[in-house]
Amino acid sequence: MPRYKALIEYCGTNYQGWQKQASPNTIQGKLEDALFKFSEKQINVIGSSRTDTGVHALGQVAHFDLPKEYEIERIFRGINFYLQDEEISLLKVEKIPREFHSRALATHRHYQYIIINRPAPITLDKYKALWIPQKLDVKRMQEGAKFLIGHHDFSSFRSSECRSRSPIKHLTKLDIKQTEDKIFIYASANSFLHHMVRNIVGTLLLVGRNQIEPETIREILEAKSRSAAGPTSPAWGLYLIKVSYN
Amino acid sequence: MPRYKALIEYCGTNYQGWQKQASPNTIQGKLEDALFKFSEKQINVIGSSRTDTGVHALGQVAHFDLPKEYEIERIFRGINFYLQDEEISLLKVEKIPREFHSRALATHRHYQYIIINRPAPITLDKYKALWIPQKLDVKRMQEGAKFLIGHHDFSSFRSSECRSRSPIKHLTKLDIKQTEDKIFIYASANSFLHHMVRNIVGTLLLVGRNQIEPETIREILEAKSRSAAGPTSPAWGLYLIKVSYN
Repeated sequence: MPRYKALIEYCGTNYQGWQKQASPNTIQGKLEDALFKFSEKQINVIGSSRTDTGVHALGQVAHFDLPKEYEIERIFRGINFYLQDEEISLLKVEKIPREFHSRALATHRHYQYIIINRPAPITLDKYKALWIPQKLDVKRMQEGAKFLIGHHDFSSFRSSECRSRSPIKHLTKLDIKQTEDKIFIYASANSFLHHMVRNIVGTLLLVGRNQIEPETIREILEAKSRSAAGPTSPAWGLYLIKVSYN
Repeated sequence: MPRYKALIEYCGTNYQGWQKQASPNTIQGKLEDALFKFSEKQINVIGSSRTDTGVHALGQVAHFDLPKEYEIERIFRGINFYLQDEEISLLKVEKIPREFHSRALATHRHYQYIIINRPAPITLDKYKALWIPQKLDVKRMQEGAKFLIGHHDFSSFRSSECRSRSPIKHLTKLDIKQTEDKIFIYASANSFLHHMVRNIVGTLLLVGRNQIEPETIREILEAKSRSAAGPTSPAWGLYLIKVSYN
């Protein structure tokens, strides 16, 4: 059975995350429904990352096997046609060797978190960014972020529901950029613990609001305890932007 | 009674346009409701431009008179508080001389129209941009746009419902810019006829799709007949971005 790799974009607002579970209203579930309509077979879609309810994706990667070979353009148009009532879109499909595995072979996941930092409430970006009315000190957030880059035990930023075997991850990037009233936090790692980006953002927000010092981030990391860090920031600011493979 | 000028942002998707009419579900209606809750008086809000159902604004300007003077910060927070369940936000409020009139004294209205030009359907930008899957020739659209700049009779781009006294308008800007798969059309004029920007965009799309020549735009303009031009492009790609005053 030929294997296909898909690049997927979605607005997470109206879905209960990536993973098909009790609820069929998930990205994976909707993709499998579309593939069923397309191929008349039950097809399993495997994604690189199990994004949470409300989390968006600009570049999720998944793979699936089809019972027979189809022209790429036909798969692309067919799946997107069956997804027309959803906020899920196939950006690209390609045939890929059977050895490819979207989750197991991903070398890096890249996320962005968007904050709109202005006194006025947000309208067009509602559920697509986190609104923070109080002025944030981005320079302090950048200073604090430096302590997290590298190979660390991220237990302090790990949700209690995390089922990862090890709390040790390699955070290769944690950049914070500001353009006018938008703040973008870019985080890249081999893989992330459950809620890791959102817990990092929630903690950096404490630094940005002058509630803790940038250096305190090091102590929080060293504490290896979830209670040492800040709150989990909302899902709606988070985007899976890219997944890398060798 | 002191007069106030407000800069307003809104997502037009869930409203029946700016102007309060039979339906209370309009931007003007929601602002007047919020002002009523704030001041306990029926306040009339006058906007610079009557945006249609589904049209967004990043910088609509309106004015209103309050029964007494309030601290600016109190108006800003109060109105935004009462708008919290809406997708309407006061970006700025300022006290302004009684002579100010948001509509009568506006010297220029500035709009943008966003097109996403890619084969994959759009998700996060649904109802915030127009999706065109077929590759558009932006260079041709730019050539065609040139014929519309200046002082012209825009009858060909005027909706039959337009109540403007004259079809003659001065289009000072019609720029088309592309960044990756997004196309931005910027249009500025002293004022616009009803559906004028959307009719211009609908006609430029015919040029971008090679259905008519760029030079045909001149003939369409000279025909002074709505039937000469292209279809009205959808409201959801259009944004009122700025209003200028002397």
